[in-house]
Amino acid sequence: MSNQANAIIPAMRLSELGEFGLINLIRTASARYENPERTPWREMLLGIGDDAAAWQSGNRIQLATTDTLVQSVHFDLSAITWEELGWKALAVNLSDIAAMGGIPKYALLSLALPTQVKVKDISELINSFMHMATEFGVAIVGGNVATAPNIVITVTIIGCSKGKTMLERSTASPGEQIAVTGYVGLSAAGLEMLKGKTISDPKARNILRQAHFRPMPRVKEGQILIQQGVRTAIDISDGLVADLDHICESSKVNAKINIEQVPVHPVVTAHFSNSQELALSGGEDYELLFTADKATVARAKQALSCPVTVIGDITKEKLPTRVLVVDNKGAIIPYKKGGWDHFKDAVSHVEFT
Amino acid sequence: MSNQANAIIPAMRLSELGEFGLINLIRTASARYENPERTPWREMLLGIGDDAAAWQSGNRIQLATTDTLVQSVHFDLSAITWEELGWKALAVNLSDIAAMGGIPKYALLSLALPTQVKVKDISELINSFMHMATEFGVAIVGGNVATAPNIVITVTIIGCSKGKTMLERSTASPGEQIAVTGYVGLSAAGLEMLKGKTISDPKARNILRQAHFRPMPRVKEGQILIQQGVRTAIDISDGLVADLDHICESSKVNAKINIEQVPVHPVVTAHFSNSQELALSGGEDYELLFTADKATVARAKQALSCPVTVIGDITKEKLPTRVLVVDNKGAIIPYKKGGWDHFKDAVSHVEFT
Repeated sequence: MSNQANAIIPAMRLSELGEFGLINLIRTASARYENPERTPWREMLLGIGDDAAAWQSGNRIQLATTDTLVQSVHFDLSAITWEELGWKALAVNLSDIAAMGGIPKYALLSLALPTQVKVKDISELINSFMHMATEFGVAIVGGNVATAPNIVITVTIIGCSKGKTMLERSTASPGEQIAVTGYVGLSAAGLEMLKGKTISDPKARNILRQAHFRPMPRVKEGQILIQQGVRTAIDISDGLVADLDHICESSKVNAKINIEQVPVHPVVTAHFSNSQELALSGGEDYELLFTADKATVARAKQALSCPVTVIGDITKEKLPTRVLVVDNKGAIIPYKKGGWDHFKDAVSHVEFT
Repeated sequence: MSNQANAIIPAMRLSELGEFGLINLIRTASARYENPERTPWREMLLGIGDDAAAWQSGNRIQLATTDTLVQSVHFDLSAITWEELGWKALAVNLSDIAAMGGIPKYALLSLALPTQVKVKDISELINSFMHMATEFGVAIVGGNVATAPNIVITVTIIGCSKGKTMLERSTASPGEQIAVTGYVGLSAAGLEMLKGKTISDPKARNILRQAHFRPMPRVKEGQILIQQGVRTAIDISDGLVADLDHICESSKVNAKINIEQVPVHPVVTAHFSNSQELALSGGEDYELLFTADKATVARAKQALSCPVTVIGDITKEKLPTRVLVVDNKGAIIPYKKGGWDHFKDAVSHVEFT
């Protein structure tokens, strides 16, 4: 996949290149113009390819990330409320800062909106956005408004590192444990319910809806991971296996996880026969997936107030796939990577900061 | 206009509120959550309402701005090339940093694109974007790609101030001269040509097209203005009168300009009978409009290599409108503000950083 950008056929469409191909194209073009002797490149610590960009500014590390939600692609107004949309637009960005162990500080909000949108609705979105921003100590410093045939919400967050380090994707080492905060698969299960799967228990319905529309970014947790000495993390936006694969690709390592240790929420286990698939391949959980040596993981687990589960190891073994999923008996569990497969012909978004 | 946000009628649409009403709504909501004792608010120097946001970070002033181009709203693919689109998407953002007298450093590029877009086309956009970024010393550190029914390009630029000060909108004082770099109305004239007005001279055609599709942001010029002691500036995106009005509103002053001193490009004078209107109300020139005392303007004029024209004064006089346009004999010239009037029911975009 990583060399597709070099082979541009005149009539080729984005649907054939795929979105990771497009990111690679941007990355390749960017690299061609890089000049490590000039200021911004000299100060840059992380460019395209992590959860957020990072650069040195005086004695601080600055972070920046951006993410877009497109109507009918990422959300459906017949399902999500405006209040939830405002929350989610900010949450997915905060999660990228969380994945760096950083402190979010400033947000820019860009709204492309049809003129027939009701003022009452957009007010709900804005208030919910502001409310959440304030809870996370983020100030809205600007943005852009434009008319458009379709709603497109782009949020940019600028922050800084807590200390002199940050969490990265490329620092995983063989021998480390792989751990995850909270539960995985809950958001994808929520989406299945919203798409029509009947769940009669109102409590379960509420948990599923919240997971999908009001994810809680692990900002504090990311900072605690840094303090406890963790160096490697990603937030789960594409899916557990897909995001673990991002770490493995960046770190040039392999990973083996045990399906029976993956933390699936009881609501998912109880109501979804495909709970395993949802946990492995369902995205948008916005939990933190991290790797560290055993002692560090144990320390992190103690310091965090949310559940932390060890699900496998970064390994020196040669594996048939970069990420291998096995059961307690060592039998290989097949999986869909999640995120990736359907990018080329349908709905998707991929952030490359 | 500034109190519209307080009167939300349930069925009211954005088309009735208008885009400045929407910005005001965001600004009001943001102010409600402000907490000057908490970090990001304490460090903030300029929030919503200038060309870029600004905050103190250690001993530096950081700047951030974002701007969006929407297909069929801000551009028409049957007129603009992909290469020009890449240029313009970056240029309009660089211009906001120029209006602060700042140094642009990092860019985030968010592309929402239909899957049928050709890879060849998007490559041209990306290469042109990267090429221009490098010319201006800007590194692309990340962004986002997503599928969408309609092309939406959002660019965020993060930069810093050159010294300890920046150009603002709110610092104009009575007695100061009003000056402008380059020519005004050229971009709007270019748009008229692109919409069908016949211009047979190929040289003129080229100048007009370039002005509209390849504006040259005045980044160096903004920095020179700062060095020469100028404190107040804006870039001309909405139109000369509309942007001068932004300065007047922010600075709580009035302005009087002489139509006969407004620098209209000879190509516009030669080919457009409405050249005066284009100069006053046509937007997207991306020139810098600034105010300063006479001696400072004279110094700035000498230091800049582009044309600089004094067009009027910030005045203590009570005027019938915040911006008054007169001719050499003192007769009042009526004008459309530009930008504003058609925001409420049609095409527009307004950046609020």
